Amino acid sequence: MHSRTKVTVRYAETDKMGIVHHSNYPIWYEIARNDFIKMFGMSYTEMESRGIMTPLLNLSCHFGEPAFYEDELIIRTWVQTITAARIVFTYTVKCIEKDGTETELGYGSIEHGFVDAKTFRPCSIKKRMPDLYDKINHAVKHY
Amino acid sequence: MHSRTKVTVRYAETDKMGIVHHSNYPIWYEIARNDFIKMFGMSYTEMESRGIMTPLLNLSCHFGEPAFYEDELIIRTWVQTITAARIVFTYTVKCIEKDGTETELGYGSIEHGFVDAKTFRPCSIKKRMPDLYDKINHAVKHY
Amino acid sequence: MHSRTKVTVRYAETDKMGIVHHSNYPIWYEIARNDFIKMFGMSYTEMESRGIMTPLLNLSCHFGEPAFYEDELIIRTWVQTITAARIVFTYTVKCIEKDGTETELGYGSIEHGFVDAKTFRPCSIKKRMPDLYDKINHAVKHY
Amino acid sequence: MHSRTKVTVRYAETDKMGIVHHSNYPIWYEIARNDFIKMFGMSYTEMESRGIMTPLLNLSCHFGEPAFYEDELIIRTWVQTITAARIVFTYTVKCIEKDGTETELGYGSIEHGFVDAKTFRPCSIKKRMPDLYDKINHAVKHY
Repeated sequence: MHSRTKVTVRYAETDKMGIVHHSNYPIWYEIARNDFIKMFGMSYTEMESRGIMTPLLNLSCHFGEPAFYEDELIIRTWVQTITAARIVFTYTVKCIEKDGTETELGYGSIEHGFVDAKTFRPCSIKKRMPDLYDKINHAVKHY
Repeated sequence: MHSRTKVTVRYAETDKMGIVHHSNYPIWYEIARNDFIKMFGMSYTEMESRGIMTPLLNLSCHFGEPAFYEDELIIRTWVQTITAARIVFTYTVKCIEKDGTETELGYGSIEHGFVDAKTFRPCSIKKRMPDLYDKINHAVKHY
Repeated sequence: MHSRTKVTVRYAETDKMGIVHHSNYPIWYEIARNDFIKMFGMSYTEMESRGIMTPLLNLSCHFGEPAFYEDELIIRTWVQTITAARIVFTYTVKCIEKDGTETELGYGSIEHGFVDAKTFRPCSIKKRMPDLYDKINHAVKHY
Repeated sequence: MHSRTKVTVRYAETDKMGIVHHSNYPIWYEIARNDFIKMFGMSYTEMESRGIMTPLLNLSCHFGEPAFYEDELIIRTWVQTITAARIVFTYTVKCIEKDGTETELGYGSIEHGFVDAKTFRPCSIKKRMPDLYDKINHAVKHY
């Protein structure tokens, strides 16, 4: 089970090399991640209002081909693993060509911890949001 | 009374035109603003921890000459006016040339309101931080 | 004649006040501007490939109400004036409420100059792209 | 042989969690990388003007502790490996505490390819800038 998120490259996202600056990929991944969890009936805003935040632990990106201004991209998102304390999202970035085919530009992976919004200390998503945990866990196992 | 803040242009701040993207100027102004209020013995972190926030009401920028990657810039900051409810900062951006002279690239002006950090409703800096208000007000009148 | 562009607030666009950082509004305006000129059969990528760039001369923004993470915004764009050397775009930012109504958050205005992509010196859009100039000029006069 | 670069956290770099948004770490690394190569008598501007660009191939970041607004950070930079076609930089991010001690917040690693600025195709830094290659290679071996 995965989500697909469309992003159009902004002018401000380019740099003087004429391509997208790499710091924007994690920002796109973040947009895509929200689309993913929305499939399970939860927005990230709602998670935060229920006292859960998800700061990053690890981030990795591979850049195969550059993206350019006005490129229409698809971010494909799925969850690689979820535990009570952590979740790993995996992403691929594809460019939609003019003929409609998709060319892979790169991919990435981000590990988040679940923390309490007030204390910023680790907490269990399994206990705090068992329903969301079960749904995502099921999706991971039956991918 | 004014402050001078040095900023070096980052690669990520450039765009595909090869110059600095305009969205970065307000970010530099923000850095410079903190240097300004520090002259009066107060950091913006401390203002926030004492329950005051300063969201923007109005922003204007004039761009005369572009800035380029690795340019060393000076942001000159002063306060044009302060009332109990609002403050207007004015900024000029200058580029330090290799011979040490400074070339003006542009200027800008930002009006902030004072709001309570919890309610986000307008509050009086004159009542909440009379000492800071008096010092800045004095600096404005004796500029 | 105006365009309407939809933007969803990204997490990375928020700051520690919990609202959208003001530096993002000019970035949204830029996205909206491209949608505007596309109505006249021209993308900004095509303008650049034909040797015209449009650096900023002046920028102003008014912030009435803050925008928040995940807010769905409409940027309404039109041209206030166009000459051979300059163009002024005007923008309003509205938030789409859950009941479908739109609340104005703020507005802004950006003046661009037309410059030659190689020399970065002023050039006449009227001479270089007479068709685009005529169409936009007509739209301004018959707004 | 390594370089140390000081960065002060900007307000715009924070997000609604109240901490620095992760997309800023690669931007800081980029600043630090330029300080590193400057130790060998070369700025990145000069590399580009001599026809070499260094787009990213791979990026990884580990986030141990969050950084906050106004934190003073040290980015420690060194080169892990250099070949004719690629270079891997490694970075650690430390926060300077009020007592002057340094606390590690995280670390990261970025692999760049060397490409020709006009064709964007791989090129040999060993052939194009033998002096810079030799110096960095020597520094790596005698770290």
